[in-house]
Amino acid sequence: MNKIPRRKNNTVHVGSVMVGGGHPVVVQSMTDTDTADVSATASQIIDLHASGSEIVRVTVNTVEAAAAVPRIKEALAKKGIDCPLIGDFHFNGHRLLKEHPECAESLDKYRINPGNVGRGSKKDSQFASIIEYACKFNKPIRIGANWGSLDQTQLSRLMDENAKKELPLSNKELVREALISSAIQSAQLAESIGLSHDRIIISCKVSDVQELITVYRDLSLRTDHPLHLGLTEAGMGSKGIVSSSAALAILLQDGIGDTIRISLTPEPGGRRVEEVYVAQELLQTMGIRSFTPLVISCPGCGRTSSDFFQILAKDIQAFLREQMPQWKKQYQGVEEMKVAVMGCVVNGPGESKNANIGISLPGSGENPVAPVYVDGIRVTTLKGATIAQEFEGIVQKYVRETYGS
Amino acid sequence: MNKIPRRKNNTVHVGSVMVGGGHPVVVQSMTDTDTADVSATASQIIDLHASGSEIVRVTVNTVEAAAAVPRIKEALAKKGIDCPLIGDFHFNGHRLLKEHPECAESLDKYRINPGNVGRGSKKDSQFASIIEYACKFNKPIRIGANWGSLDQTQLSRLMDENAKKELPLSNKELVREALISSAIQSAQLAESIGLSHDRIIISCKVSDVQELITVYRDLSLRTDHPLHLGLTEAGMGSKGIVSSSAALAILLQDGIGDTIRISLTPEPGGRRVEEVYVAQELLQTMGIRSFTPLVISCPGCGRTSSDFFQILAKDIQAFLREQMPQWKKQYQGVEEMKVAVMGCVVNGPGESKNANIGISLPGSGENPVAPVYVDGIRVTTLKGATIAQEFEGIVQKYVRETYGS
Repeated sequence: MNKIPRRKNNTVHVGSVMVGGGHPVVVQSMTDTDTADVSATASQIIDLHASGSEIVRVTVNTVEAAAAVPRIKEALAKKGIDCPLIGDFHFNGHRLLKEHPECAESLDKYRINPGNVGRGSKKDSQFASIIEYACKFNKPIRIGANWGSLDQTQLSRLMDENAKKELPLSNKELVREALISSAIQSAQLAESIGLSHDRIIISCKVSDVQELITVYRDLSLRTDHPLHLGLTEAGMGSKGIVSSSAALAILLQDGIGDTIRISLTPEPGGRRVEEVYVAQELLQTMGIRSFTPLVISCPGCGRTSSDFFQILAKDIQAFLREQMPQWKKQYQGVEEMKVAVMGCVVNGPGESKNANIGISLPGSGENPVAPVYVDGIRVTTLKGATIAQEFEGIVQKYVRETYGS
Repeated sequence: MNKIPRRKNNTVHVGSVMVGGGHPVVVQSMTDTDTADVSATASQIIDLHASGSEIVRVTVNTVEAAAAVPRIKEALAKKGIDCPLIGDFHFNGHRLLKEHPECAESLDKYRINPGNVGRGSKKDSQFASIIEYACKFNKPIRIGANWGSLDQTQLSRLMDENAKKELPLSNKELVREALISSAIQSAQLAESIGLSHDRIIISCKVSDVQELITVYRDLSLRTDHPLHLGLTEAGMGSKGIVSSSAALAILLQDGIGDTIRISLTPEPGGRRVEEVYVAQELLQTMGIRSFTPLVISCPGCGRTSSDFFQILAKDIQAFLREQMPQWKKQYQGVEEMKVAVMGCVVNGPGESKNANIGISLPGSGENPVAPVYVDGIRVTTLKGATIAQEFEGIVQKYVRETYGS
């Protein structure tokens, strides 16, 4: 299934999850509850993890948040959930880790933003302090640079050097260079303090698609640490999904990216798990990993004037997702199944034959019957009010017979 | 803005719209009303065109649909709308065009599916008949192959040849070759009948992301006709958006694709224009074309425990889209504006400075004020219940002052 050659690098263990080193690209996400609220945060982590987030990041921004982390971890353990937790630190990470060793110990990775670790003369000592906790508790880190919190010392230094150059870099190139070099130099500094090479993941996030592509292509040539990949601040609704998918697709196709996060702004009242589904859909539609059977369905046109095929496509998609928690225990490989729900005879039979199971519903003016194809062979023809239930039955039977051990 | 070098080819005029030849990548869509219903179809075309579909395709599947086409065109003309219409023909195109010359004349392009043009000995004569109408009425065509309606004659021929080969192609390779060669040979046949070279667009759609990439990379090397690009039967919801964005992003980044369509299955009761927005968002976030100011907004985390920034991001996005019909007449370049709506101090000020206008809302525990940045400079600080209105006012003022002539 994994046809794209991956960039070579070493494996970093994040709790029980392996990142890089040829391991499958890991899906991660981040909570948006107040970390100090143990029950709300534990409950969102459970939700994200059940939806497919293999690692979850939580902000650790206050003493209350730091104190809550071990209790969140406990709450997860009580439910039998083993989900590696990453602590997201800015400004005061060195202090929180020092004052809350039980937080430092219970986290599975520390995310350090080299632009937010401290200013001036304090920067290196505060960074060193965080790395010492990582060494002490044997934790990996992510050096997570972001152009929204670019290391200003690094940028100033590069600007000064640049001013003396015969062919100076453009502003855009300077920002990129500051972003990448601050991440790489921080990783080197961490190693010089004593953190082992295979405990470091790097990210350099920007919110512009072409900039992200340029940055990560360059970054991937300059480091052999595994890379966390995401388009930062991608935004809301389809714009967030489109821009994240476009940027990450191009990089993943180059073999770049060992763990991904889709940074969608939820609609007010929207569900946080949406970003996890998008990450899975991206990896799966690109043929990199499989999670849930895919539904292929046509957009409809003037030939499909009823919305019956839309309803059937939606129902089948929901049905497949609902079955997965059970199916994935019983039916190995079922996540690779493809189901086609097509609206008319133009591409209906053909696309149905290309899928594992497909149904070609009658378009307007066609004989009102729906041929069903299994592994490319027409097996039956459905009609009348029970088409949806009967088709679901055929899917269930196929799953049992094909993926049952 | 357009940084990606485009593949070189000639220009095809589709009504008033130019496709290929270095012209901007054209956004198109397709109606899903019954074409015979003149008022419903005209109304959906108006809606799609107003949303940004520069060309609209309608199925022409029956005599009633063919008879409706000139009346639809008239209804558009009455409203002063110049939107090129493509007729989508399958099975009976040769007959409909013959029996409804006023349909043939009023369409701006014919889409011909080489897999659905007729069987056996009738195929070539029916295809020729359609091409003759294209020549007579001076219309361009799209040779639109689709693996859901693969030309079976072509496939059989290739399978026979393949059986004799020392190193036979795999089934997948055979299907690809049948798809591509049937499109290219149909284009050659059209030219041999008399259609000029610059009246032909080609597409070869499949529903699998990696297959689409492989097919179009190959296709782009084997023809200099402009290419219509789309992932067929992409499906519903985020899966349809993700898979289309991933596949098309990789190809557009290679300079492949002169006109695009996003084939989303609408949710029951969903809006058809969604596919147009996705197409625009893809081109714009990739830096290929601009349509509407983009909103950069963060996903939120435990630092942004209220949903205020989500509401503001949503409101600003809706506000910008609403203004565009007026703005694009008055303010040249406004579509390239970037607005950041950020939820806390971590990346808020930085990302706001990178945008044309940005607001960094206070995260939990921060001083409850929101600095506003214009072209990288902090210009004011908002607070209280009127933040949203005041920020909208700042955006409006910026647009007038920056993009006003």
